Amino acid sequence: MTDQPLDRELLIDLITKEVLATIAGQLDRCDTVEGVRHVIVNGADRVAFHGDASQVPVDLAKYIDHTALKPETTADDIDQLCREAAQYHFASVCVNPAWVKRSASNLRGTSVKVCTVIGFPLGANTAEIKAMEARRAIRDGAREVDMVVNVGALKSGDHAAVLTDIEKVVDSAHEAGAIVKVILETSLLTDEEKVIASSLAKKAKADFVKTSTGFGGGGATVYDVALMRETVGPDMGVKASGGVRTKSDVEDMIAAGATRIGASAGVEIVSGDPDERKGDSGGNKY
Amino acid sequence: MTDQPLDRELLIDLITKEVLATIAGQLDRCDTVEGVRHVIVNGADRVAFHGDASQVPVDLAKYIDHTALKPETTADDIDQLCREAAQYHFASVCVNPAWVKRSASNLRGTSVKVCTVIGFPLGANTAEIKAMEARRAIRDGAREVDMVVNVGALKSGDHAAVLTDIEKVVDSAHEAGAIVKVILETSLLTDEEKVIASSLAKKAKADFVKTSTGFGGGGATVYDVALMRETVGPDMGVKASGGVRTKSDVEDMIAAGATRIGASAGVEIVSGDPDERKGDSGGNKY
Repeated sequence: MTDQPLDRELLIDLITKEVLATIAGQLDRCDTVEGVRHVIVNGADRVAFHGDASQVPVDLAKYIDHTALKPETTADDIDQLCREAAQYHFASVCVNPAWVKRSASNLRGTSVKVCTVIGFPLGANTAEIKAMEARRAIRDGAREVDMVVNVGALKSGDHAAVLTDIEKVVDSAHEAGAIVKVILETSLLTDEEKVIASSLAKKAKADFVKTSTGFGGGGATVYDVALMRETVGPDMGVKASGGVRTKSDVEDMIAAGATRIGASAGVEIVSGDPDERKGDSGGNKY
Repeated sequence: MTDQPLDRELLIDLITKEVLATIAGQLDRCDTVEGVRHVIVNGADRVAFHGDASQVPVDLAKYIDHTALKPETTADDIDQLCREAAQYHFASVCVNPAWVKRSASNLRGTSVKVCTVIGFPLGANTAEIKAMEARRAIRDGAREVDMVVNVGALKSGDHAAVLTDIEKVVDSAHEAGAIVKVILETSLLTDEEKVIASSLAKKAKADFVKTSTGFGGGGATVYDVALMRETVGPDMGVKASGGVRTKSDVEDMIAAGATRIGASAGVEIVSGDPDERKGDSGGNKY
């Protein structure tokens, strides 16, 4: 499986050792200097990265996919999520496929899109079913689909299978006018695998790479966002998701190159008030 | 949604308050008396339960679905899982849908079946996609499909949706000669919801109810297995899964009414040797 011509080609062509060399071990910390968040790389002020810490936008709401993906999320939780998204003008609500129709109906006439998840959260079902799930979700009203890569195939060195898996979903979605974010589940991957998966997502013409499902025992880090941004270049989206809970988290991710944020704490993030949201609607942690 | 006639009927007809009264708070402990495992209920020797602690079989292998469901499981891990299943004569290997074809090919000519998981592990995709995923998996070689109930619909009181969801998978699977286990994800449910979901699975003509995905933060308990067995009666299967790691765990589950066990530690369980299996192939924890 690891000997297919495509794999060698990709490894030579796309798996940029320089990217790893540029990033690995050089990301020191995030810091606030005179009120501006900086991501410090190798002692310098993140010169290697896209984006600009001094230009983190004031209006964060349009970056946020307002998210509720826990299995026990109820119809009432979904309705509240949609109300909040409309009120705060979030980019989208991100919900499981079974809630797409209800969410689309709730959000008709607003600017908030419906985003859903495909092959989620394990990414271990077949490419054909992922593509069908995407088509069905788009028919139900989703405009954005976040698919999980086939992590097992990636770890088995079967890059052709990983690429096909992404391509099938991208083709289905683009045909229907929706965009695709490719979830890498970074917590399970080596740096090399993160770069390979990002490159394959770009090659498959996906619209975004995304860090995490929120169910895999790890979340977005500034380091991973910077690595993914460096790999895919300036023209593709990068979504940071998993454990992004505060305004400062969001600013760090944007400074490192993120153009979208997945979070369940969107209301607190944009209102700056941790008590704004009553109780824990849906128990969604990311 | 909660006011559909079907729901009321089911609640009156199937949701057995007596079951809850019989079980709840009365299960004291498991104990070994003169070499025989006993499940002690309300001070008495599990008289309320099916099965018989003194009749726990010597040959446990045929109870075990040898399981590897982690997303990072590789092709090599799957091959090893299949070799072990053939060697120890387990009931099946339980793998993600992307590995069904490879497992079926590996196990051709053996008595070991291929089991896979549907809508896994959140259960939050649509009934149609679950049914399609089951059909596709069976075409690829699966003889058993373990589907996750729509937990969100259950918690929203939409029992009609939960029932339809199960029925669509059961109809697809039975048509193709495969059996269906319905995963409740007990750690997320109240006792009443466990009874409702078990009853709905029975009404939909599923073959088994199953406790857990292993990804939901909880696993099989003797209490839940007994509750599910009491609810579905003697003629349906009950599968205990999640955290079942020792021979003694398996015996307790069987004594409480389980007829199948999901475990990644099958080799250790049947060989009685914790060092039998070299390393952690696939990292599967349940």
